[in-house]
Amino acid sequence: MEPILILNTGGTFNKRYNPLRGELEVPKDSNAIESILHHCSNTHYTLRSILHKDSLEMNDADRAHIAHTIQTSTSHKILIVHGTDTMDQTARFLALHVKEKCVILTGAMVPFSIDTTEATANFMFALGALHVTEKKGIYIAMHGAIAEHSHLYKNREKGIFERC
Amino acid sequence: MEPILILNTGGTFNKRYNPLRGELEVPKDSNAIESILHHCSNTHYTLRSILHKDSLEMNDADRAHIAHTIQTSTSHKILIVHGTDTMDQTARFLALHVKEKCVILTGAMVPFSIDTTEATANFMFALGALHVTEKKGIYIAMHGAIAEHSHLYKNREKGIFERC
Amino acid sequence: MEPILILNTGGTFNKRYNPLRGELEVPKDSNAIESILHHCSNTHYTLRSILHKDSLEMNDADRAHIAHTIQTSTSHKILIVHGTDTMDQTARFLALHVKEKCVILTGAMVPFSIDTTEATANFMFALGALHVTEKKGIYIAMHGAIAEHSHLYKNREKGIFERC
Amino acid sequence: MEPILILNTGGTFNKRYNPLRGELEVPKDSNAIESILHHCSNTHYTLRSILHKDSLEMNDADRAHIAHTIQTSTSHKILIVHGTDTMDQTARFLALHVKEKCVILTGAMVPFSIDTTEATANFMFALGALHVTEKKGIYIAMHGAIAEHSHLYKNREKGIFERC
Repeated sequence: MEPILILNTGGTFNKRYNPLRGELEVPKDSNAIESILHHCSNTHYTLRSILHKDSLEMNDADRAHIAHTIQTSTSHKILIVHGTDTMDQTARFLALHVKEKCVILTGAMVPFSIDTTEATANFMFALGALHVTEKKGIYIAMHGAIAEHSHLYKNREKGIFERC
Repeated sequence: MEPILILNTGGTFNKRYNPLRGELEVPKDSNAIESILHHCSNTHYTLRSILHKDSLEMNDADRAHIAHTIQTSTSHKILIVHGTDTMDQTARFLALHVKEKCVILTGAMVPFSIDTTEATANFMFALGALHVTEKKGIYIAMHGAIAEHSHLYKNREKGIFERC
Repeated sequence: MEPILILNTGGTFNKRYNPLRGELEVPKDSNAIESILHHCSNTHYTLRSILHKDSLEMNDADRAHIAHTIQTSTSHKILIVHGTDTMDQTARFLALHVKEKCVILTGAMVPFSIDTTEATANFMFALGALHVTEKKGIYIAMHGAIAEHSHLYKNREKGIFERC
Repeated sequence: MEPILILNTGGTFNKRYNPLRGELEVPKDSNAIESILHHCSNTHYTLRSILHKDSLEMNDADRAHIAHTIQTSTSHKILIVHGTDTMDQTARFLALHVKEKCVILTGAMVPFSIDTTEATANFMFALGALHVTEKKGIYIAMHGAIAEHSHLYKNREKGIFERC
C-alpha cells in the first residue's frame, strides 16, 4: 500500500518550552508527531518535516513549498500538521494548486508538550479519516469534525474550530 | 446528522489506580472517554456506559447485551471501547447479530489514566474513520490500522495489534 | 503548631498556557501550589497569593509588600514561590528587612503546568527543609540545594541554580 | 560533603504498568527515583537499588540487608524509598540496629509512573528535611509530615499517613 505522506510545518502543535529563554518555541524536530506515531505501528507513512514556523509567520513562498512537496510526492493521501491561525489560508492555496489528491490539515490549540490529549486527538482523527476516505480535495480536521476546508473555521473567542 | 453511538464496555482503556486497594480497577464511569470527547466539540454523539469489565470476564450474555444495545439504537455508526483480550470474540459475535450498521471496536494496551497517548490515539483514529466511512460491517481499529474484524489480531508477545 | 506561611508571588512556577492568546501567562490563582499541597495533608500552613508577576517585572514596591506581609504574619517559617530571574534581588531585599524569621525562596525553570516534576521537587524540598530547620535567615532552595541566599545563583547558560 | 545514601527497596513508588501482562510491577530499576534526582543537580548522593519488592512481601532477611547496607556505608544521612504497607515494620527493625545515623523512610500511595506529583512530593520533602537535620534516629516522611517513625502511621481507610 502506498504510504501516507505526513508533512510537519510547525505551529502550536509542536511547540516546546525552552527553559533557558523562558519561551515556547517551534522546534526543528518532529518529536511530538513521532510520539503519536509510536502508537501507529500498522500505518505505512513517510514523515517529512519541511517548515518550523508559527503559522502567523508563514508566507506564500512557504505555501508554494508545501504544494510542491505534495505535487512531487507519489502519495495520494497527505496529512499536514499546521498552525491554526493560517490553516485556512494554506488550505485555500493548496486548493488552487493540488488536484487529484486527498489532503487533510490538522493542528492543535495547545502544544502536545503541554497537554498531549488535544493534539493526539486531532492528529489521529485526521489519520483515521484519511485511511478510509476515497475522496479528493483539501480538508480540515479539528475538534471532532472533518469537512471540506472552507466549512471549518477557527473561532478565536472560543478557541475551537467550528463548522460554518 | 444522526449521532454516533459510543459504547463503553470497560477494559484496560478505562482502568484507574485505586490507592486504597493498590490495584488498577475498571471504574463504573466513562471519565477517560469523556476526557477525550472534551476535545470533540463538533462530534454529534451519544455516549452510553453499558459494561465495566475486564474483557477476560466478558461472557456471551454481555455480548448479547452489546448487540441488543446496537440493534435498538437509531444510530448506524457505532464506536465500542472494549478490552483487548476478547475484542475479537465480541466482534465475531456482533458479526452474527448486527447487520446494516458500521461498528468499530477499539481499546488500549495501556490505561488512559497511565498514558493518555495510546488510548487517545486509538479512540480518535476509530472516530475519524467512522466519520467518513460509508461501509457496513464489524471493524477493529488499533495501532494505526482499521480492518474488517478478522484481519487484525492481538499479538500477545509484542503487545500490539497486527494485520493477519 | 504555628502554621507555615506560604506566599505565592508568581513566576514561571505558576505559568499556564492560554490557548486563546497562544501564550504562557502568570495566572491570578495558586492552582499549581494547591495541586502540590493536596498531597500535604499533615502540613499546617496558610497560603497567600500576593503577587502574580513574572519576576523580571517585580519592583521594590512589590518587594516591600512581600516584606511587610512576612513582618506582620505570626508565622516564623515562610516559604516563597518566586520567579527565578530576580529571586536573588528579592532575597537581598528581605535580608535587610526581615529578622528573626526563616524565609526560604524557591521557584522553577519549567512551569508546573508543563512538567510537574521540577516545580514539585523544588517546592517540597524547600518545605521539608523548612519543617526541620531551627535557623533564622533568608535562604534559597533550588535543584537539590538549600543555602544562605547569597550562596546559590541562577546559571543562565545551564538553566539551573548552582552554589557560588 | 559526605554523600546522602539513597536506598531503593521497591514499593508502590516504583511500580510501572506492564502492558504484556496487564499488571503493575515493581521494576528492577530506579527510573522513578532517577527522574526526580534529575532535578537535584546540587545534591551529593549515592543511589543504591537493593530490593525490588512490594513491601507486603518484605521479610526480616530483607530488613537485615537494609540495615547492613546502612551500617557499612560511610554516609550518616540515609533516605529509603519503601512500600507503605510495612514501612513501619522496617522502621522499627532499623531502630533496633542502626544508631548514630539519620534515616528517613518515604514512599507513595500512587506510583510515580501514574502520577508524578505525590511520589515527587514525598521524596523531595524527605530529601529537604535530610539536608538540614542534625538529629539521629529513624524517621518517616509522608504527606507533608516528618516525625520519629512511631509517630506517623498509614491510615488504610483514607489512604494517607497521619500523625498518631
